[in-house]
Amino acid sequence: MKSAKTIDLNSDLGESFGAWRMGDDAALLAIVSSANIACGFHGGDPDIMRGTVALAVEREVAIGAHVSLPDLQGFGRREMAVTSNEVYALTLYQIGALHGFAQAAGARLRHVKPHGALYNMAARDLKLAEAIARAVRDFDPALRLFGLANSALIDAGRAVGIPVVAEAFAERRYRPDGKLQPRREPNALIQESDEAIAQAMAIAREGRLRAVDGSILELQADTLCVHGDSAHAVTFARQLRAALEATDIGIAAPHRTGQQT
Amino acid sequence: MKSAKTIDLNSDLGESFGAWRMGDDAALLAIVSSANIACGFHGGDPDIMRGTVALAVEREVAIGAHVSLPDLQGFGRREMAVTSNEVYALTLYQIGALHGFAQAAGARLRHVKPHGALYNMAARDLKLAEAIARAVRDFDPALRLFGLANSALIDAGRAVGIPVVAEAFAERRYRPDGKLQPRREPNALIQESDEAIAQAMAIAREGRLRAVDGSILELQADTLCVHGDSAHAVTFARQLRAALEATDIGIAAPHRTGQQT
Amino acid sequence: MKSAKTIDLNSDLGESFGAWRMGDDAALLAIVSSANIACGFHGGDPDIMRGTVALAVEREVAIGAHVSLPDLQGFGRREMAVTSNEVYALTLYQIGALHGFAQAAGARLRHVKPHGALYNMAARDLKLAEAIARAVRDFDPALRLFGLANSALIDAGRAVGIPVVAEAFAERRYRPDGKLQPRREPNALIQESDEAIAQAMAIAREGRLRAVDGSILELQADTLCVHGDSAHAVTFARQLRAALEATDIGIAAPHRTGQQT
Amino acid sequence: MKSAKTIDLNSDLGESFGAWRMGDDAALLAIVSSANIACGFHGGDPDIMRGTVALAVEREVAIGAHVSLPDLQGFGRREMAVTSNEVYALTLYQIGALHGFAQAAGARLRHVKPHGALYNMAARDLKLAEAIARAVRDFDPALRLFGLANSALIDAGRAVGIPVVAEAFAERRYRPDGKLQPRREPNALIQESDEAIAQAMAIAREGRLRAVDGSILELQADTLCVHGDSAHAVTFARQLRAALEATDIGIAAPHRTGQQT
Repeated sequence: MKSAKTIDLNSDLGESFGAWRMGDDAALLAIVSSANIACGFHGGDPDIMRGTVALAVEREVAIGAHVSLPDLQGFGRREMAVTSNEVYALTLYQIGALHGFAQAAGARLRHVKPHGALYNMAARDLKLAEAIARAVRDFDPALRLFGLANSALIDAGRAVGIPVVAEAFAERRYRPDGKLQPRREPNALIQESDEAIAQAMAIAREGRLRAVDGSILELQADTLCVHGDSAHAVTFARQLRAALEATDIGIAAPHRTGQQT
Repeated sequence: MKSAKTIDLNSDLGESFGAWRMGDDAALLAIVSSANIACGFHGGDPDIMRGTVALAVEREVAIGAHVSLPDLQGFGRREMAVTSNEVYALTLYQIGALHGFAQAAGARLRHVKPHGALYNMAARDLKLAEAIARAVRDFDPALRLFGLANSALIDAGRAVGIPVVAEAFAERRYRPDGKLQPRREPNALIQESDEAIAQAMAIAREGRLRAVDGSILELQADTLCVHGDSAHAVTFARQLRAALEATDIGIAAPHRTGQQT
Repeated sequence: MKSAKTIDLNSDLGESFGAWRMGDDAALLAIVSSANIACGFHGGDPDIMRGTVALAVEREVAIGAHVSLPDLQGFGRREMAVTSNEVYALTLYQIGALHGFAQAAGARLRHVKPHGALYNMAARDLKLAEAIARAVRDFDPALRLFGLANSALIDAGRAVGIPVVAEAFAERRYRPDGKLQPRREPNALIQESDEAIAQAMAIAREGRLRAVDGSILELQADTLCVHGDSAHAVTFARQLRAALEATDIGIAAPHRTGQQT
Repeated sequence: MKSAKTIDLNSDLGESFGAWRMGDDAALLAIVSSANIACGFHGGDPDIMRGTVALAVEREVAIGAHVSLPDLQGFGRREMAVTSNEVYALTLYQIGALHGFAQAAGARLRHVKPHGALYNMAARDLKLAEAIARAVRDFDPALRLFGLANSALIDAGRAVGIPVVAEAFAERRYRPDGKLQPRREPNALIQESDEAIAQAMAIAREGRLRAVDGSILELQADTLCVHGDSAHAVTFARQLRAALEATDIGIAAPHRTGQQT
């Protein structure tokens, strides 16, 4: 019998650049169902992209473009005063570039997720969010747009008529209004693995979690983000997957389940 | 009655970058049938690429990716010791990136032409030429590969089974073996417009021209390259087109005629 | 007899990059007393910098580092969320790089001026302004720091104990509080040359001008900024210099007069 | 009593970039006497450079500019067809940029060493070597130029009248003519630590070593290069230093001993 519920696990991959290595891509590709692959603007270069796509295809992990502001030194984490037109164009450029490698590997792009500062800007600025959503739709209206659950980016994706995938975080605390507790707050991060896994399970099974003020927050999420920037992070990702699989929750990329918010 | 013969006129476009302008793209798009559009590695940025594709689509000029070594400061004109794998990946990246804009504009890429130092390296180094040809084929085997007539790049394109388009130059002198007279030689360039137009006409009509030693050289060419980096260059391009049209030679992009070497 | 008063005229130079040209540097170097030379982060590259320094030395125009956020595509005009530490380091890097060319040319840097978005951020954000001022002081406490008159950058320069040079604009309108009328307002720019020259004269001779609301604004300025991005701009710069010289006002770089706010 | 002989140990440091880490700089700074610090063209960025200079000053290790071709993706290891003028300008730019951080830290640059492809090109191409040597001299004729022993770069440094420092490698085999055995040869590298240390000792104590053909090669070297790109490399560097110190050979940067070829 099929799982009644499934959830996607996604991770940011292919973030090495030139001679510099970052992240344990091979380990994560054995855990996640969706790979957000850097496209050269915050990490990744043509050689890294080619290799990462090949590895994701081999592992049957869904390939997505992880599009960023043009800021290699800042790893795409510094907000920039870009216009909607600039965001539209840089999104299209990066989707296209990654598509080149997917196409040559006989695979297809399945999703697009903004990275770092662009992700945060698109979560709150509807104009920029719409620019991203239009670029995705104009490239391929079947591509799924990944964004923070309850954010402007999810709204923008719906508004332009493309499938959206709401993302939640096992290791971040939420405010009662559904927004993330800002990182400057002392309790922004969940430090204990057990608590983080419990939160992920609550999101995946019940679509709800306990907010910082103790109230119950309804949060529909289709994908959970896991990291691979340390041995600890990979271990946590593995534990999270095992915990989900120990219940009746399946792990699958959104395009395999038709799942979307 | 249709022309018995057609030839393509191609030009390098979209070479502005950020706040810097280069070339008279609007003027050239009224003259040429194929536009080689810079993809961000020697010129062009996502905004410029989007605008150039839009203009080319509007003028019904065939869109091609003008792929380059990664050297913005050197405008892609400095040879670099790149490997075949690097060339394969950077070609695919740039084709994909430009495809993004074509796709969003409801248009299709028709060809790929290496730029500057990469063009010269691919003309003589079969391994690098094959890396380019494989990248083109792996992206879309219907894409036409533009290369110097009689060069390793044309051979490589044929070897991997994609349509090739042999390029000739109205304003360069040729050696009896079909190679270009090197630029370091005093007579490398044809200075007089009349003589350059006569050479272009001889290539287009008869598939032959007079080499530097006075001998007759057979040179099958499908496309002639014209430049737009000065008012004089645009004027010459216009004269060349008029001269061709004054005879029975039609101007058309290769994909419209099925023309290929 | 010496002029009772002098003022500096400064201009942004060396903003070409690689194969791309920008501005009429040769014309401006015959007009201005201070050259703000791009250092490779928004324009300029090592070859351009070397040539611009050589030209400025030949014309006896004071050499300054025009330091920018790292954003070549955006020409340094897009604000970025940089930290004070990042601003300190990028300022020092660019001052040093330009110093290399001055040193090799037997000349000395005289001033530092932030460019574009960094200039605007430093005008209002005291923490970033102080980072710039400390970098200038730590390199050479005799370097003059150019900043918008009445801005946080001027305050920061004074606070760290380096000479500051207050900049005013002939062609911009001011609010009664001494700030520039924002560019989004319809009357932000003075379109008529005569009016712009009159404002410049009032600033240079009387240290005052008429604000947008008709009130009189006291504005002590040591330098006026002129542009060279069009033939019109160069003509205006020439007219402005002639108008100043037609009175008893001398044109001289701050280091020649000891002039500073 | 002072050592009769001293030798310098140098290492390439500060090669991290943005979010990417490379090398164990802290470990190496406890071993070497000279630090070649990346200047942003193959690695390093303003923040990394500032931190590396601070650490080197604290450890009293001599600071040098490790200048490179502009190729971040290729880590400066891909040869490029640059002109002498380009090499002169990029060398000056990078020396100046690093000088900015040394100056602010109250320290001085002591040497310059070309990196990667530029090092190899300068070893055999006298015109490029001279461009580097002139840039060093024009910045500060007291700076020491590090280059491969018996190479064009050493000749060029002597020709322009600056102190030169001849570099040798413990772990590379030499041909009878004093050139390095090319890396494509199977015996190019010395795999055994003991043999590498023996070669280093022979160079440091006797100015001679055994070439690949078994003959004795005279090789005057002032500095030995050690690496920090793996735990093994750091261990070897430590062993090498201990072996040298166990004899009567002192470890010191060239500017402390006046040592030069």
